[in-house]
Amino acid sequence: MKDKLMLMIPGPTPVPESVLSALGRHPMGHRSADFSKIMAQVLTDLKWLHQTTNDVLVLTASGTGTMEASIVNFLSPGDRVLVCCNGKFAERWADMCDAFGLAAERISAPWGKALDPEAVRAALEADTTKQIKAVIITHSETSTGVINDLESISRHIKAHGTALSVVDAVTSLGAASVPIDEWELDVVASASQKGYMMPPGLGFVSVSAKAWDAYKVAKLPKFYLDLGKYRAEAIQNTTPFTPAINLVFGLQVALEMMKQEGLEAIFARHHRHKIATRAAIRALGLSLYAQDDAVASPAITAVVTAPVEAEKLRSYLRQRFDIALAGGQDELEGKIVRIGHLGFVCDRDILTAISALEAVLPELGHTAFTPGAGVSAACKVLTAS
Amino acid sequence: MKDKLMLMIPGPTPVPESVLSALGRHPMGHRSADFSKIMAQVLTDLKWLHQTTNDVLVLTASGTGTMEASIVNFLSPGDRVLVCCNGKFAERWADMCDAFGLAAERISAPWGKALDPEAVRAALEADTTKQIKAVIITHSETSTGVINDLESISRHIKAHGTALSVVDAVTSLGAASVPIDEWELDVVASASQKGYMMPPGLGFVSVSAKAWDAYKVAKLPKFYLDLGKYRAEAIQNTTPFTPAINLVFGLQVALEMMKQEGLEAIFARHHRHKIATRAAIRALGLSLYAQDDAVASPAITAVVTAPVEAEKLRSYLRQRFDIALAGGQDELEGKIVRIGHLGFVCDRDILTAISALEAVLPELGHTAFTPGAGVSAACKVLTAS
Repeated sequence: MKDKLMLMIPGPTPVPESVLSALGRHPMGHRSADFSKIMAQVLTDLKWLHQTTNDVLVLTASGTGTMEASIVNFLSPGDRVLVCCNGKFAERWADMCDAFGLAAERISAPWGKALDPEAVRAALEADTTKQIKAVIITHSETSTGVINDLESISRHIKAHGTALSVVDAVTSLGAASVPIDEWELDVVASASQKGYMMPPGLGFVSVSAKAWDAYKVAKLPKFYLDLGKYRAEAIQNTTPFTPAINLVFGLQVALEMMKQEGLEAIFARHHRHKIATRAAIRALGLSLYAQDDAVASPAITAVVTAPVEAEKLRSYLRQRFDIALAGGQDELEGKIVRIGHLGFVCDRDILTAISALEAVLPELGHTAFTPGAGVSAACKVLTAS
Repeated sequence: MKDKLMLMIPGPTPVPESVLSALGRHPMGHRSADFSKIMAQVLTDLKWLHQTTNDVLVLTASGTGTMEASIVNFLSPGDRVLVCCNGKFAERWADMCDAFGLAAERISAPWGKALDPEAVRAALEADTTKQIKAVIITHSETSTGVINDLESISRHIKAHGTALSVVDAVTSLGAASVPIDEWELDVVASASQKGYMMPPGLGFVSVSAKAWDAYKVAKLPKFYLDLGKYRAEAIQNTTPFTPAINLVFGLQVALEMMKQEGLEAIFARHHRHKIATRAAIRALGLSLYAQDDAVASPAITAVVTAPVEAEKLRSYLRQRFDIALAGGQDELEGKIVRIGHLGFVCDRDILTAISALEAVLPELGHTAFTPGAGVSAACKVLTAS
């Protein structure tokens, strides 16, 4: 049905009406006092969301742009970096390191499993001559629905002493707690179309004092993504290059909504949606790709749809109920569907998605569950919390 | 007065209501058939606007991002490039070349004057060993209101044989004709918040077959701005990384409006606004920064405000009539104001801006003009055409 699309993919995520209205305002000059006032508010609120006193800078770019900014500003050609790999987006980090001539060493875990912080510790402890300049960790792996133990990994990086932590928080920021100051995270990248309740187009990078020290000696070339330029302008509540002004209007409203809800409530909501979804999927007789509840992302649930064909399920849900789920990527193509439950998602949305799943699964040949079991399992979680 | 801002700066420019409405639509998945349908239309219409059969790629970035893409995709460290310099944005190109380790040689003209195509020809003819890999030209210089003779310069580049033309068309595309195929331009960069009647956040790069040949051997590192990735995805009407979906919605509507108006009518409108504004400024007893009508940009008119202080004039117009003009940049700070008349600007807007100028100039001490002379001069142009 036209205009009835329900997005339950891990980005873009649904956007509140008040944010959409703000997007449609007439632009103003980005060098005006009025715009600086908005930027001042946005920059303050971003620090609140990032739980940090570090700089949080706003780029006009998608998540990959912020990933690149997290590399080119702090590293030099040939630098040795550890890339923690257990999914497609971690692989993208490794590819990017290769593209910039870094010596990227992969520490891998199977897709669907969490990284072993001990493996990171071992690699860092073996580096007695301090050659490792950075450790790149994807916090919530969007391709598999796994969340890695960032707190422990960051502790091992701190013990190493010189390596920077470079964190992909693209699908965790705004969905899971990323306490930058408490965990002493150096560089944290995220993007607007995930936990921010915003459309895509803006990216964010948080930078610690230690990372700024690395910036001073980093030799990779940069200009548009040169964070030093963004820092210099952020002090005056502006940006070095024309920002996506209308997206900033929307961001201001979205951050205000997030403040109203409060960080603890936001994280509790995402956690509740994760466990409700997982309980429902199990009750429907399907498998979870990330089997261990403890390492499941609060932002995305990946579902192994066998015996039903994943793409058939996805297209049928889209066609019959106007619900968009994401498919599997790379080696997971055709094997899983991914339910995004991050950002502007409420309890009702979880019930809706599960009940639609219940409706279509038998039609696609999967009947090995008690009718009503999925919704009932989700209800139990949602009403208990 | 709240919500009464009238933008007459050279970006961001005014945005039509239908485009604003499109910006505020609910996002859809960027990997969906529905979005690919929109992208297909946008990519087709962009080729129409660029007057080319070359690839025109869409980036989520501001103009500076497209400038960077125009360098890193086609050049290697140490490459010799000519940068045609007669304003702030040309200087930015030169700075960017320096940041990427290119051997940038500047060919300069005084600010406010056009580049001499003969100087470019001489430099290229002297390069008998074909060391010059690219010539960078800012078509319409936003900082001074000068338009350079791109057609002649491109002809000299073609005569050189191997150098690529890299064109900054940020404030010319959509305001002046940039016939890419006819003039055989290799790389042409532009941005949404100028002649496109759109807010900032999207950038565009047109790439010729010859430039794609250079891409194959270019060694500057790149990832987010790697145009080869964009080309591979554009074939399937999508993008390698999440695009600013809502801005693409707006762009589709803006391009449709431009098609309705037609290229010739759009360029005639901008030309009319240029000559009306220039006639009015002269009639008001003020000087034009770019004195030669033949090299004045159809997008921006820079006005030397002496004896009135430029910043005083600007802030008074903003405060008294809610009209935003741009100030001077770098060496021109405090000396000029820049009237942007590009994108969604109609004849009425020109009359409005000129009559507001007439109203405030005497209050700021400038009375050396016949009351009504500015509006009358503008009227004469606008009603004659």
